[in-house]
Order: sequence, then C-alpha cells, then structure tokens
Amino acid sequence: MSEQAIPTLRTAEQLEAELRHIGATRYHILHPFHKLLHGGELNRGQVQAWALNRYYYQSRIPAKDATLMARLPTAELRRAWRSRIEDHDGTGAGTGGIERWLKLATGVGLTRAYVESTQGLLPGTRFAVDAYVNFVRDQSILEAIASSLTELFSPTIISERVSGMLRNYAFVTQDTLAYFTPRLTQAPRDSDFALAYVKEHARTPEQQEAVLAVLRTKCDILWAMLDALQLAYVDPGMIPPGAFVPSDR
Amino acid sequence: MSEQAIPTLRTAEQLEAELRHIGATRYHILHPFHKLLHGGELNRGQVQAWALNRYYYQSRIPAKDATLMARLPTAELRRAWRSRIEDHDGTGAGTGGIERWLKLATGVGLTRAYVESTQGLLPGTRFAVDAYVNFVRDQSILEAIASSLTELFSPTIISERVSGMLRNYAFVTQDTLAYFTPRLTQAPRDSDFALAYVKEHARTPEQQEAVLAVLRTKCDILWAMLDALQLAYVDPGMIPPGAFVPSDR
Repeated sequence: MSEQAIPTLRTAEQLEAELRHIGATRYHILHPFHKLLHGGELNRGQVQAWALNRYYYQSRIPAKDATLMARLPTAELRRAWRSRIEDHDGTGAGTGGIERWLKLATGVGLTRAYVESTQGLLPGTRFAVDAYVNFVRDQSILEAIASSLTELFSPTIISERVSGMLRNYAFVTQDTLAYFTPRLTQAPRDSDFALAYVKEHARTPEQQEAVLAVLRTKCDILWAMLDALQLAYVDPGMIPPGAFVPSDR
Repeated sequence: MSEQAIPTLRTAEQLEAELRHIGATRYHILHPFHKLLHGGELNRGQVQAWALNRYYYQSRIPAKDATLMARLPTAELRRAWRSRIEDHDGTGAGTGGIERWLKLATGVGLTRAYVESTQGLLPGTRFAVDAYVNFVRDQSILEAIASSLTELFSPTIISERVSGMLRNYAFVTQDTLAYFTPRLTQAPRDSDFALAYVKEHARTPEQQEAVLAVLRTKCDILWAMLDALQLAYVDPGMIPPGAFVPSDR
C-alpha cells in the first residue's frame, strides 16, 4: 500500500482499500486545527475565522459540481450529480447548504454581508478552493468524480465537530450547526455513488494511480485550508495583510 | 490612498503612487520568512525548503507569460513579452533563469531530479502559483500585465537576499546565487514596460481599481508562498503530509 508502488492492476476492493488508506493518513481530521476546534480550545474569533474561510469552500462547491455536470455524458449521471447542487443551492430562497452555512457564520457572530463579500478571506483559502474548482474543470471525468471521495470520511469529522462544538462553546447552538445534520445522510449517498463509479471505471493501473493521486490532492486542499487558519489565527498568529482580524481574541 | 475609496479617476502619476503604496505595505519583503532568510536565521534544511518551493514559481512563470502572450494583439507587444520567456527558458540547454534556479537549489544541497519532480512541494505553494497562472489566463490583458508589477519592488528584495545570504550562510556562494544577477537588470526593464502600459491603458476609475486589486492579489500570492514555508518549516513547523522533510534540521 506504499504510495510509490509500481503501477499494478488492483481489484476493485484493493483500490477501495488504498483509497481508504489515504483517508486514514491524510484527511484533515488529523489536522491540529480540527482538534483545537472540536476540543473547545479556540476562542470565538478563531471559530469565526474558521466559519468565514470555510464559507468560501461551501460557496464554490456548486461551481465545482456544475463544471463537472457540464461534461457528464448521460442524463442519468447528470441527475445523480445535480442532487449535489440542489443540496448546496437549495430549492428556494433561504434553503440549501450554503444558506445553512451562512446561518452558522452569523450564529458565531459574523455579518452575512461580510461573509458573502469574501473580503476577509485568507488568500491561502482562496487559492486552495480555486485549485479544487479548476482541477475538476481540467481533469478527466473519472478524476473529477474521484476528487469527491473525501466524503467517504466526512461523517466522522462531522460528528466530532458537532458534538465537540456543542459541548465546548457556549456561543454555539444546535441551530447554529444545522448545516451538518443533512450532510450526515447526503455525504454517504454521494460517496457511495462516487466510489461505485470509480471502482467500475478505474480499470487500468494508470487510471487507478490517477484516482489515488486525485484523492491525495483533494486531501492536500482540505489540509491547506486548515494550515492557513493555523498560521493566521493560532500559531504563530500571522494574519496576512487584508485578512479578517477577529475583534474577540 | 485608502483601499476602500470610492472609485475616482486618477492621473497616471496618482495611479503609480497607489501602486507603489501597495508594494510598500503588502510586498513579501515585509514577510517574517524573508527576514529570517536574509538575516541568516535559517538552517540549511529551511533554505532548501525555500529553494525547492520557489522553484515551482520560477518553473511556471513562462507558462504564465505564454498564456498572456497568446492573447496580445500586436507583434510589438508579443516581442516585448517574449523577452520574459527567453529570460526564464534561456536560448539553449543550460541557460536561462529556471536553469540558474536549479543551480541555486542544487547548490544548497538538493538533487536536480527531486526539485524538478515537484514531489516535495508544499500544496500551499502549488495552489498559490497555479492561482497566478490561472489568473493571468482568465483576466483582461490590462489586469494580466498589471499582475507583473511586483517586479517594481524586486530589486530591493533581491539585493537584501543576495547580500544577506552571502554574508550569513557558509553553504551559499556567489555562484549559487547567479540567478539573481541578471534579474537586477531584467526586472526593471520589464516593470518599466508594464508600468507604462498600465498608466496608459487604465483610463477609467473601474480599470484603475481593477489594476490596484490585481497588484494586491499578486502580493497575496507571494505572501502566501512564504506563509506556507513559515508554517511548515519555521513556526510551528507543521510539515503537511507528503511534503519535503529536510534531513538537516
């Protein structure tokens, strides 16, 4: 299961095991910032910085999914993928995942207009998120679908976040964290679909290597987002010029 | 000179003054990592990490310039821009800025193959550099040219780097730093051209605001590259999974 192995054809089950190994070793559940967040070791300003920066990721996910959907060849595939966009954009004003993330951000004390402006975003967040959107646009359909496989690992990080944040922060309520509840069913539905697709379509050693590389890259993107928060708002606390400065530190 | 000012039409000289103000407040000469580097406060492994990561920037600059050159409308403009690509790619094997950067990287103890593979690159570096290339590809010609204006400020940072590194690191020689010598004449030639172009073509308040925003974004890119080095290799020393681990720490 070494990442430098000479390409060999894996069974679908071996491929899945290697994908899960990448999650076990590189998913951002292992990042120190996640541990601080759910462990209650951040102050309100630091939680605001997290909500503000993660908003940009949420807000770009439908663009990522639309650019892929535009290239999917069948109505069946597009329908499956369209449900992701519906989850994020909602079915009417005031619904959907982006809206619920804005509730989270305002729930921890930011204004909606400031969050939506992305004015105080860390440049490192912007570059990492844009890299994800561009990657999905520019790579093969197989790689683009595989890049969503981090959702295999998201139920665990979500449950750690929700239980930890509710327990540890007086300023966080169940209502503030409403974003996460539907994700616990949406993410497994989506990752089941993507995993089945990848296991069926990654049929050569080269395709399998590409799929594994993509999942590493996606883990790098999520990791880099927490790296940027760590540097700016935790240790050493070097906020880049122009980025959000918490009033509550 | 506030960045939030309501758009007004500036004279060319006012525009230049605002551009220079952005450099004075946001260029990466102000970043703590630059101060550690030229101040002799890094060990060899940390200097290697800098050389390795900065290599990716150097290696993508001709792609950035070619994607802009492809959109320039006249032979005159393309000729002016082509000289940048010649500077980096050289006029034959073993010449040019990228080759000289590889000499720098091998001079501080890395192997050429490892550097060229970009295997140990920090993801934050990759995302920031790719953001630059994509930005130049996707924005207006005026904005793409304006994004090169950080070269207005590079002679000072280069002279600080070269004198400081020669004075402070026994493992750095004049020969290792040969990359920088031609840059001291190339960068002013290029930035004179780009500044004259921008002063002539940014004729509306909106174009002037766009040009100022672009230069801030470019400063953010250079800053984010040093942020990534700072977090991984200085403080708190959190090297992301898969990135270069110095043997000399």
